[in-house]
Amino acid sequence: MVIKNNTIKKLIKHYKEISLLGKINGLLNWDLNVNLPEKAGKFRAEQISYLTKTISDKWLDKEFRKNLEQADKEKNLSLEEKAVVRNLKHSYKYYFRVPQKVIVDFSRVTAEAFIAWRQAKEDNKFILFEPHLKKIVSFNQKIAGYIGYKDNPYDALLDLYEPGLTFGEGKSIFSILTREIVPLVKKIKKSRFSKVDQSLFEKDYPVEFQKKIAEFVLQKIGYDFDAGRQDVSAHPFTTELGEGDVRLTNRYSSNSFIESLMVAMHEGGHGLYEQGVNLEYSMTPLEGGVSLGIHESQSRFWENQIGRSWEFIRYIEPVLSVFYPKQLAKEDANSLYRLFNMVSPSLIRVEADEVTYNLHIAIRFEIEEALLNDRISVASLPQVWGEKMKKYLGVVPNKDSEGVLQDVHWSHGLMGYFPTYTLGNLYAAQFANKIGKDLDMKKLILEGNFGEILAWYRQKIHKYGSLYWPDELVKKVTGEKLNPKFFLNYLVDKYSAIYGFSC
Amino acid sequence: MVIKNNTIKKLIKHYKEISLLGKINGLLNWDLNVNLPEKAGKFRAEQISYLTKTISDKWLDKEFRKNLEQADKEKNLSLEEKAVVRNLKHSYKYYFRVPQKVIVDFSRVTAEAFIAWRQAKEDNKFILFEPHLKKIVSFNQKIAGYIGYKDNPYDALLDLYEPGLTFGEGKSIFSILTREIVPLVKKIKKSRFSKVDQSLFEKDYPVEFQKKIAEFVLQKIGYDFDAGRQDVSAHPFTTELGEGDVRLTNRYSSNSFIESLMVAMHEGGHGLYEQGVNLEYSMTPLEGGVSLGIHESQSRFWENQIGRSWEFIRYIEPVLSVFYPKQLAKEDANSLYRLFNMVSPSLIRVEADEVTYNLHIAIRFEIEEALLNDRISVASLPQVWGEKMKKYLGVVPNKDSEGVLQDVHWSHGLMGYFPTYTLGNLYAAQFANKIGKDLDMKKLILEGNFGEILAWYRQKIHKYGSLYWPDELVKKVTGEKLNPKFFLNYLVDKYSAIYGFSC
Repeated sequence: MVIKNNTIKKLIKHYKEISLLGKINGLLNWDLNVNLPEKAGKFRAEQISYLTKTISDKWLDKEFRKNLEQADKEKNLSLEEKAVVRNLKHSYKYYFRVPQKVIVDFSRVTAEAFIAWRQAKEDNKFILFEPHLKKIVSFNQKIAGYIGYKDNPYDALLDLYEPGLTFGEGKSIFSILTREIVPLVKKIKKSRFSKVDQSLFEKDYPVEFQKKIAEFVLQKIGYDFDAGRQDVSAHPFTTELGEGDVRLTNRYSSNSFIESLMVAMHEGGHGLYEQGVNLEYSMTPLEGGVSLGIHESQSRFWENQIGRSWEFIRYIEPVLSVFYPKQLAKEDANSLYRLFNMVSPSLIRVEADEVTYNLHIAIRFEIEEALLNDRISVASLPQVWGEKMKKYLGVVPNKDSEGVLQDVHWSHGLMGYFPTYTLGNLYAAQFANKIGKDLDMKKLILEGNFGEILAWYRQKIHKYGSLYWPDELVKKVTGEKLNPKFFLNYLVDKYSAIYGFSC
Repeated sequence: MVIKNNTIKKLIKHYKEISLLGKINGLLNWDLNVNLPEKAGKFRAEQISYLTKTISDKWLDKEFRKNLEQADKEKNLSLEEKAVVRNLKHSYKYYFRVPQKVIVDFSRVTAEAFIAWRQAKEDNKFILFEPHLKKIVSFNQKIAGYIGYKDNPYDALLDLYEPGLTFGEGKSIFSILTREIVPLVKKIKKSRFSKVDQSLFEKDYPVEFQKKIAEFVLQKIGYDFDAGRQDVSAHPFTTELGEGDVRLTNRYSSNSFIESLMVAMHEGGHGLYEQGVNLEYSMTPLEGGVSLGIHESQSRFWENQIGRSWEFIRYIEPVLSVFYPKQLAKEDANSLYRLFNMVSPSLIRVEADEVTYNLHIAIRFEIEEALLNDRISVASLPQVWGEKMKKYLGVVPNKDSEGVLQDVHWSHGLMGYFPTYTLGNLYAAQFANKIGKDLDMKKLILEGNFGEILAWYRQKIHKYGSLYWPDELVKKVTGEKLNPKFFLNYLVDKYSAIYGFSC
């Protein structure tokens, strides 16, 4: 990366400290999730909040602001220089427009809310979380106000997680998705293939073999273990802790061999993206994946487009059979393929199959927008949740712990984050469609030859880090803007074949 | 802890940030040693050096200095308040008297020296390390000059690691030790029991069982795993990462079951000390163990006074036998006791037995003092090393990697650090002598009942953290100042019995 402009040079120099401190905070968080002794929680929270404040101070540095304002007026900037300014302005908006006191108060509110949420979920009592969620909605309304928006307060929040995303765009995407997917699910439920032998989930799949398989597939798809690690945590995640250090986590349950394999592919997808960014972008505003949506496209591509494809199941079948010879004695690639692609409307988002998954997101999208605009009350959420589940999925939770309390996101204060999961699914299908034209993907997967597919992503997406904004990137890569039809076509083709019906 | 004085309150408030950042740096270092992927080394070094600079800035804060100078003049301070001022002045001396540029330059010199030392040791070429060691000696001379001293530049450095320790005191201690220990080693070598069956070190002791045994003894002696963890690293160490978070490491070689067990006891001793400090002292200048010497007394007490006692071997023998039934088929408590207490003059300090260990330190003590006073040159070190090994231990290394290049300390810039290891051995024996009067230690160990011994330390030493200076503490606990006779008596009693001679 060649930076000629002196103001931009100063911005990058200052940003380096922000990046460095951010990644130290990343290690504190990784360690909190992977290693932290029980009694160390209080002190770790204090360290994290101290660093968060320090980072916020760095964003608010007056000289930095002056330089950023100056940079915004500069002409004849290079592509990279322009992207540096654009990215800084995007992050800066939050730190600059929202008063630091609000940010700090909000962090305290969410720290308490998280504890209350955990208890509420455990006790299955929404009322314990309700007052906290009220505060969180109100803080989000305030923050949206500080940031500013044209049409809808939700716009201000969506843009924080996926630059440029608006409520209008989201609404149009989700209305297309729900219109197509709801009848598709009904067809699948009616199919004679929709019953699955549940006894497979009552067998024992030793965790040590699950770990071996997870490591195997990560290595196979190209994840570099010299620049990362795979550990265990309650909720799997991927984190970039600095150059040469992209860590994944997984979780293992002895009753299922599917989950840890799919988690490895999913987190591996995130990890490959981070490991593939141009090293020259390290510690600059161009570092890391460009948005949550594009990031999720990488994880979902490797998890679903590859990991749940017939070719991959065909390839991995002997590996599964050698570790679980008795457990899978009656299975072959075809039955395993069906098993990995069971579709069934269920209550829990993180357990949902690829067909019903986005319906879960649609519900959250609608609720968040209605909350922010005061069209529904926090108190009415359990009821609203039930109604929407009934409408889209045809199932209704008996208890809030399997309904409105299931996800951690709101307790962390995140509103506007969920839709990026759906964007990820859509981007993944759109990219896969393009790869299908450029490469003989089926043959490559069948042979366990993932190098060309990874090279494609490295060349078209990974190396750019945060150089191109998501909408530019998808256009550059696929020739058109985000279009849900690729995902819908993929679903219909795949699942009509599995479940034996025509559309 | 009740702090009434307002100036002291301000000092403690500012110190809290130093402590917090120091422990974040601690995590970066722990992770570097335990987890870091190969390719992440460069970036981690950058993070650590950034935080080190930030911490140094905090020490140099003008308001802080003003308050410290003010506090030094305050009257009617409580015991704790006085200790706060004393401890801050002690640390401050380094940061304030030595110019920050020297500290930063030195850190760069040692970063390079460490890499050169590693290569020099691997290639067995002292000449590769020589120019770096020259710089390190010269930096230490400069630093001693900045700090200031009365008689000997070594005094200024010794005091950094063990407050109050002088060259004169060290010299007198080492002359007593060498005078007594050299003839003792000769007697042992002549004994008919001095040969040990080496075939035990050719057997295989599965690492998973070694881990189980290490965890068992740690739990037994009272280490709290809810406030710590035991991991694996190339060189075992203990680190306090904050309230409720004291972590140990160990290392396992499948050819020896002794080392990992003794490491667990050793690091466990450090860990118990840190876990036992009054929680009110957290993040104040009274936090943590008071000095390296007292810290080493805790590790050596549990490793040697307990771990290598006949009673402990008697207690642990069935545990060893159940995990290694074939390997130890011919052994009993008596033969194992002899095995754990083999004495043999050897080349490597970290492998030395308790009798010869302090001779290794004496050599380093003499060399450091002579280097600092320009009485020997760095170039002559390999030759000087050989002469001193010959004189004290009767063995001479064939190669520098087993001689002057064996230890990492000098490459890190540490001169004056080694003697604290010997102080630890001496303190441990002096404390053990006192415990022997207060408790029926042999019976307690024989029964695996370590609670009363730990309670004794908790009450007499641990809880005070850094409240009492080492010399005050040893006097308060044992009624007299540090006296090498306790250690020498212990050695003579124990080893004359094992090796069957009278003194």
